[in-house]
Amino acid sequence: MDTLNIAILGCGTVGGGIAKIITEINNELSIRAKTNIVLKNIVELCPEKAAERFNIPLNLFCGGGKDLTGDEANQYIKEIISSKEIDLVVETIGGKSDFVYNLCLEILNSGKHLVTANKALLAERGKAIFEAAEKNNVKIGFEAAVCGAIPIIKTIQEGLTGDLIQSVSGIMNGTSNYILTQMQNEKLEFNDALKMAQESGYAEADPLLDINGGDAGHKLTLLIKLAFGVDVSKEDLYISGIQDITKEDIDFASEIDAKIKLICYAKKVNGVIYATVRPMLVKNSNFLSEVNGTTNAVRINNKYSGIHFLVGKGAGSTETAMSIVSDIVFIARYGDKIQNIPAKQVCNLANPGQFVFSYLITFHTGNLPGTTGFIATAIGNQGINIETVSHNRHSGEKAVFSVATTPCTFGQVENAIKEIRNQKPGMLLSEPKIMPILY
Amino acid sequence: MDTLNIAILGCGTVGGGIAKIITEINNELSIRAKTNIVLKNIVELCPEKAAERFNIPLNLFCGGGKDLTGDEANQYIKEIISSKEIDLVVETIGGKSDFVYNLCLEILNSGKHLVTANKALLAERGKAIFEAAEKNNVKIGFEAAVCGAIPIIKTIQEGLTGDLIQSVSGIMNGTSNYILTQMQNEKLEFNDALKMAQESGYAEADPLLDINGGDAGHKLTLLIKLAFGVDVSKEDLYISGIQDITKEDIDFASEIDAKIKLICYAKKVNGVIYATVRPMLVKNSNFLSEVNGTTNAVRINNKYSGIHFLVGKGAGSTETAMSIVSDIVFIARYGDKIQNIPAKQVCNLANPGQFVFSYLITFHTGNLPGTTGFIATAIGNQGINIETVSHNRHSGEKAVFSVATTPCTFGQVENAIKEIRNQKPGMLLSEPKIMPILY
Repeated sequence: MDTLNIAILGCGTVGGGIAKIITEINNELSIRAKTNIVLKNIVELCPEKAAERFNIPLNLFCGGGKDLTGDEANQYIKEIISSKEIDLVVETIGGKSDFVYNLCLEILNSGKHLVTANKALLAERGKAIFEAAEKNNVKIGFEAAVCGAIPIIKTIQEGLTGDLIQSVSGIMNGTSNYILTQMQNEKLEFNDALKMAQESGYAEADPLLDINGGDAGHKLTLLIKLAFGVDVSKEDLYISGIQDITKEDIDFASEIDAKIKLICYAKKVNGVIYATVRPMLVKNSNFLSEVNGTTNAVRINNKYSGIHFLVGKGAGSTETAMSIVSDIVFIARYGDKIQNIPAKQVCNLANPGQFVFSYLITFHTGNLPGTTGFIATAIGNQGINIETVSHNRHSGEKAVFSVATTPCTFGQVENAIKEIRNQKPGMLLSEPKIMPILY
Repeated sequence: MDTLNIAILGCGTVGGGIAKIITEINNELSIRAKTNIVLKNIVELCPEKAAERFNIPLNLFCGGGKDLTGDEANQYIKEIISSKEIDLVVETIGGKSDFVYNLCLEILNSGKHLVTANKALLAERGKAIFEAAEKNNVKIGFEAAVCGAIPIIKTIQEGLTGDLIQSVSGIMNGTSNYILTQMQNEKLEFNDALKMAQESGYAEADPLLDINGGDAGHKLTLLIKLAFGVDVSKEDLYISGIQDITKEDIDFASEIDAKIKLICYAKKVNGVIYATVRPMLVKNSNFLSEVNGTTNAVRINNKYSGIHFLVGKGAGSTETAMSIVSDIVFIARYGDKIQNIPAKQVCNLANPGQFVFSYLITFHTGNLPGTTGFIATAIGNQGINIETVSHNRHSGEKAVFSVATTPCTFGQVENAIKEIRNQKPGMLLSEPKIMPILY
């Protein structure tokens, strides 16, 4: 039986989970891979803490278990990269720093396979990394980089190869979804729900990348590469987060039988890709509306086989680690027959103004007769049909109401608002909020 | 570039869908497979009808497009099996007859890969077929045999290899689920919903194998092989269908916030497998309760990565065909590196009496004071705690009510009913219905 020797760089939440699984079910993994899966080395600054947390033997750590300085750790990493014995390196240091970027290139250039959960690195600086893998005929496993435990990458790369993907959408950031679920169920405002998420350990002290859509954007970038064979970068996508969602928005959503979710969305129509990450009103008839808390879900619409849903844990130690270990088994089994990324296709990205959705537009106005009629007329003047107008939340001198449209472009909606502003400069007390409705 | 030459035997709903996909996206498939995917021959008794229905060229059919007699078709099949040119044969004739069984063995023994959607054959007579594949070092693709379009087999075989599966459950028969959904939504009795399913084309004229749990049992048998590496046959499982479900049962289910679904269920605990196909009351908090109509869904609970759901189309022409085409690409890519079935493990199957669930027991009794108390006491005497007793549907001299228990064995429930019968022979007007509750 062949042997696959592995080193893990970084033994935190994910790295530790990997070492734990490989240690606990090593025999099963080796049988499945028809290859001895051998964990040779772990490089970690504080091995004792990690060994205790994950119940892994201290002798697996470079340095025999004593704490390492940064320089010592770097020296061990260099030895691993130059070692002829190691076949595959797991990078679980994280981040998109030059250090990690160069490290990944060196791993690949030394002829070793790379397995990583590093979505930021692959989404923002992935091009050179994938090219290095091609050049050196080694593989990159990154199942754990998109939606933690959900095997979405192998599903696209291996499970749905008999089809053409038309759209990919989903809930891919557990922190945002937890906050929105709390806002919905406990009738909280955003800041209170965020505080709750932080207290429960579901949001970082600095939650920016989770709540501003950046993390979800990284995942969507990778899925677009896989589903459509197109190389996009996060900057190409229209991304907006959940920071501005209010209790009122959730209330208006309920009125049209919908829930607000941070949705990753990419659709290919006539060779053009429409891709965005933003809060949407998901109709209760769409399965994604039922995905609550930190759970992740991906919806794929295919030409021949219709709609598929995958639901699972989007984060967590052994949850994410499981995807990495599955990548290791996959590489052990199929080695250089694996295709890292599909052939590259040329494709244009639509600008946000071209996006066709039904939209919900929420207006804050003075409490004056004729307002609803004027706004509805302005919307109609842009060729947009109105589906419903909400119950108006009058209060003193102010009025708040929302208008749900039938499908139209975002540009049409923006033009309608421009017309209202031009013709009645004082009518809108604030910028109307525009959110797509997902059926 | 290598070439993979394919023959399709049988060009009905699924076979035709395969020919259609291979014809329409041949270029994409060949790029993905890094192999020219070439459809060489189709054997079909009535080619013209199939060619028109699926828009495939007549010259692909053996005999050039003219109708074939059975003997002629057999002769062409023989030529394909003995041909050195053909690498992979798709069997879409169906059924578990000796003819199809022997045909599959001959295909494998001739050194050709076999791809099939034939769940009945593989579940009931699969042992020799998988052994023939091993002996000849060829592969069997059967993604389409379990839940149509859902890539559940590759998910288990390739996506979750870094984990240990603890249980597999799901809704795997679209016809039954369609009937139950209609009964639920339209308040129909079973026979009316079945008629509706037949009229809409969702149930066969002879629907027995769908509604009696047999078809779902075939799928569960295959999933148990994959998930637990254990060779079971359908006869080993406790299977019961939906024929006896009434509007009243659905009403009692609603009362405890649940829906009745035909559930495939297999769980491994301490080396023992608990496997059954039967109607269960799925709590509304369980995602499976939301799976309606002909949609299929599989729920996998893993040691390290928790719960996964896959949802998709369980049947249909191009839907099922997609899974077959994906198998073809997979075999083209990885060939003899693919493992047909995991290493065989020894495992005992629990008998139904040992199954631990919460149960709902429905009693038809005379309308007499003391009945509820007597029955509740008898249940308590078996060490079973009661969760709720339903609203009693009194009507004239009869009473109908249901008791929901906390988790206990099926054997305990049976003993309680035996005690009631022994002590009060006339109390129960009919055999109480016992259904597990799935949380």
